[in-house]
Amino acid sequence: MDRSKELFVLGSAAGILYWDMETKMPPRALPLRGEQLSALELLLHKKHTDPEVDHLLSACEKDIGSFNPVQKRNLHLLRKSYDESARLPDSLVMETAKHQSKCNGSWKKAKAAKDFKMFRDDLEKMIDLREQAAEILMQVKGSSTPYNALLDEFEPNMTAERIDVVFSGLRDGLVKLIDKVRSADKQPDLSILSRKVPVDVQKRMSKEVMDFITFDTTSENAGGRLDETEHPFSTGSYDDVRITTHYYEDRFISSIFSVMHEGGHALYEQGLPREWQYQPVGSACSYGIHESQSRFVENIIGRSPEYIGHALPRFRKIAPKAFHGMSSKDLVSAANAVCPSKIRIEADEVTYALHIIVRYEIEKEIFAHKVTVDELPQLWNQKYSDYLGVKVENDGEGVLQDTHWSGGSFGYFPSYALGNIYSGMFLEKMSKDVPGWRSGLHKGEFAPVLQWLRQNVHSKGNFYDPADLVRVATGKELTIVPFMKYLEKKMSRIYEF
Amino acid sequence: MDRSKELFVLGSAAGILYWDMETKMPPRALPLRGEQLSALELLLHKKHTDPEVDHLLSACEKDIGSFNPVQKRNLHLLRKSYDESARLPDSLVMETAKHQSKCNGSWKKAKAAKDFKMFRDDLEKMIDLREQAAEILMQVKGSSTPYNALLDEFEPNMTAERIDVVFSGLRDGLVKLIDKVRSADKQPDLSILSRKVPVDVQKRMSKEVMDFITFDTTSENAGGRLDETEHPFSTGSYDDVRITTHYYEDRFISSIFSVMHEGGHALYEQGLPREWQYQPVGSACSYGIHESQSRFVENIIGRSPEYIGHALPRFRKIAPKAFHGMSSKDLVSAANAVCPSKIRIEADEVTYALHIIVRYEIEKEIFAHKVTVDELPQLWNQKYSDYLGVKVENDGEGVLQDTHWSGGSFGYFPSYALGNIYSGMFLEKMSKDVPGWRSGLHKGEFAPVLQWLRQNVHSKGNFYDPADLVRVATGKELTIVPFMKYLEKKMSRIYEF
Repeated sequence: MDRSKELFVLGSAAGILYWDMETKMPPRALPLRGEQLSALELLLHKKHTDPEVDHLLSACEKDIGSFNPVQKRNLHLLRKSYDESARLPDSLVMETAKHQSKCNGSWKKAKAAKDFKMFRDDLEKMIDLREQAAEILMQVKGSSTPYNALLDEFEPNMTAERIDVVFSGLRDGLVKLIDKVRSADKQPDLSILSRKVPVDVQKRMSKEVMDFITFDTTSENAGGRLDETEHPFSTGSYDDVRITTHYYEDRFISSIFSVMHEGGHALYEQGLPREWQYQPVGSACSYGIHESQSRFVENIIGRSPEYIGHALPRFRKIAPKAFHGMSSKDLVSAANAVCPSKIRIEADEVTYALHIIVRYEIEKEIFAHKVTVDELPQLWNQKYSDYLGVKVENDGEGVLQDTHWSGGSFGYFPSYALGNIYSGMFLEKMSKDVPGWRSGLHKGEFAPVLQWLRQNVHSKGNFYDPADLVRVATGKELTIVPFMKYLEKKMSRIYEF
Repeated sequence: MDRSKELFVLGSAAGILYWDMETKMPPRALPLRGEQLSALELLLHKKHTDPEVDHLLSACEKDIGSFNPVQKRNLHLLRKSYDESARLPDSLVMETAKHQSKCNGSWKKAKAAKDFKMFRDDLEKMIDLREQAAEILMQVKGSSTPYNALLDEFEPNMTAERIDVVFSGLRDGLVKLIDKVRSADKQPDLSILSRKVPVDVQKRMSKEVMDFITFDTTSENAGGRLDETEHPFSTGSYDDVRITTHYYEDRFISSIFSVMHEGGHALYEQGLPREWQYQPVGSACSYGIHESQSRFVENIIGRSPEYIGHALPRFRKIAPKAFHGMSSKDLVSAANAVCPSKIRIEADEVTYALHIIVRYEIEKEIFAHKVTVDELPQLWNQKYSDYLGVKVENDGEGVLQDTHWSGGSFGYFPSYALGNIYSGMFLEKMSKDVPGWRSGLHKGEFAPVLQWLRQNVHSKGNFYDPADLVRVATGKELTIVPFMKYLEKKMSRIYEF
């Protein structure tokens, strides 16, 4: 536990350095920051894979009969983490880390030039490096395929076989829903979203949003911050959780929903079980569960008619001109508009998962050697045409749009869509447990919602693997039904079909 | 050199965590930050005192014949640092670190209650702990007394015997100068300094000051930042140097000169020799030399009639009301006013060193066992009466005013006054080398001054001990004459004696 605490503490120190790099650091400091982060990571890696850890774990394993369930979970998580780190050869870890910088550099250039060829060699090498890691991890984890080993890195115990079942239903359901939305007579007026709101006014709106979700950045007892970055993110846990947003004068909802999304991540980290702080069991469960929390707050709460009904008069007080004559129904319709597009990070709630499914299907084929690197752009464009009905004009807005693959993060994307699915399941159960939550929201009450999330998700920390957490919280196995029902209902009201 | 670089890199990472703690961190995060800093410091301490370092140094020492002067200096600095760290027992280091927190806590309470008795036991223990360290360091360093060993921690190779010579002359000279100033007919009008300037206006004045000294915080190539804290400080080196200031609406010069003072520290760190980055020889020379750079920029440049003549019209553009009808002579006189006071951090350029001399004389007596802890308040008050002619009313504004002793930093204070003395010597030499610097300043040219400091001080890094650096830069042994001449001349013009 002492070693585990040291790893957490030094890891969180590195987290502050990352945050500073993105938000405050003078530009010239970048090379020095690289040195600082590498030094810390090397140190953490060494501490992680210290053979003494193996001896300590083995000694505990002999005593396991006397362990309580929390101690057993800690032991399981430490053993898994140790075995996986220690079995990867240092040379492979170093080469991958080195290639990440190179590959990220060539990805940036290729994206700017809209030319996949400039990226293909480095991508091929990255795939090869990750495959080598996946082959080793597969044995340690007992995964059935290399790609399943990669999935497990982000969503423990999740497999392509289970994802296939839910994603194929999700894909078909979403494609049908998009068709309904497209052919509906009623279409939202999107022009209201481009009314100009100066940045300093939007900052006051952000404060309003943070006050609503009780993310405290200003009191004497505050445990959070809000700063500005091009790409919003959240970082930290327990008593030091920091989020960022961006402000576009001609797109005020962008910052509102960025603050809600990152705020959802932040509330999760702040709600982790205090008594397990510094222990493996005291960390967040998985990327997918994390994403379920951000999407819950952003979409299910933030884009609900009830919240918007509550918030609109407040926004109007802050920015009278921008919200003049705008009805709650206008804003709900515009904020939930479905617009199939080519770019994932601009996607709405309905089309988002389709962007993910494209990536998931392609990743699976890559690691099953069913597609070559050269075929990727064509395969990408075909799937965008098939699922989203959009025509990709060049690689920059196609296969090159995301940074993930250049960093070797294969297996990461599914977490985003799993987050949607989980959030729907949580919504269904919460609606049974707290039937008055919607009317409460309209009156400005977020506490009952937060309390449900705290009790059923946040406070569980990493005591369960994600599928188990979902089962304990909702009583159900992974299912898309609640998420699809929720979307159908919301969209049928907005588009009147 | 690899190990030296790692120590620098991890130390600078800890520096960012300190900066964040003072400027950005959410209040709740304090205990976690304590854990992060302790973990890093323990790690650094272990790396510092790793016996393998001793073996590496011994191997180098056998090869010293083939070393160039820079390599020899690096070896000397590493050996000194290793021997000193390694010889202090871990138990003493740990106990001192632990007692620092306790002692600092009781100092804060005692200061608030203006009651030395609440601090005396913890202070006595701190003195005892530092004495134990001093006895050991004395042997390693070859110092003649324990107090000389403590002095060497801040000002390498400086001794009480050398300080005695300069401080006694300085004390007598300053006391006489204060008498002249006090009895002068002409006295500055201080009321102009309390004209109200809103904080956002003062921020634009800070930018003006930073632009003048070329401390870049805004360009794409910036290597610095300015933030706000109650007590201004500077931190970092090379490409990431950060300063802070405070803003008082009714005392605008406070932020101007804080920015200049911290800016002086910052320019030094930014001007360290690039080719020696990450090496011991690439760090700053000493606390005293550091202070000479901040005081040079703050007092010799910032409070000069030439700079004020240049800056005033610019300040007036930014804050027309506050500077309305204020002449350059008015502002120069007020900004240089001599007002003997009881509080060191509020002291002017003339009386400042007397505050230091009080502390130095007392510290020397403590470690020579010539004064007991119980006698400290009375001794303090007597010296303030003798040297500054002020009557200390209670311990809060007397012996309890500074935090240094509560942290065990005995031997630190002399650096401040040595900084004054060094800055006078640098001024004298620069005036010979760059005769037109004053008229240049009036035209807004800081570059010739900075170039002289870069060439003669900054670029030398830690190649010399402070007395040697001063000798190389000025051709002279330590002397108060230039500093006293400079003060006499400036004050005789302002006070017309």
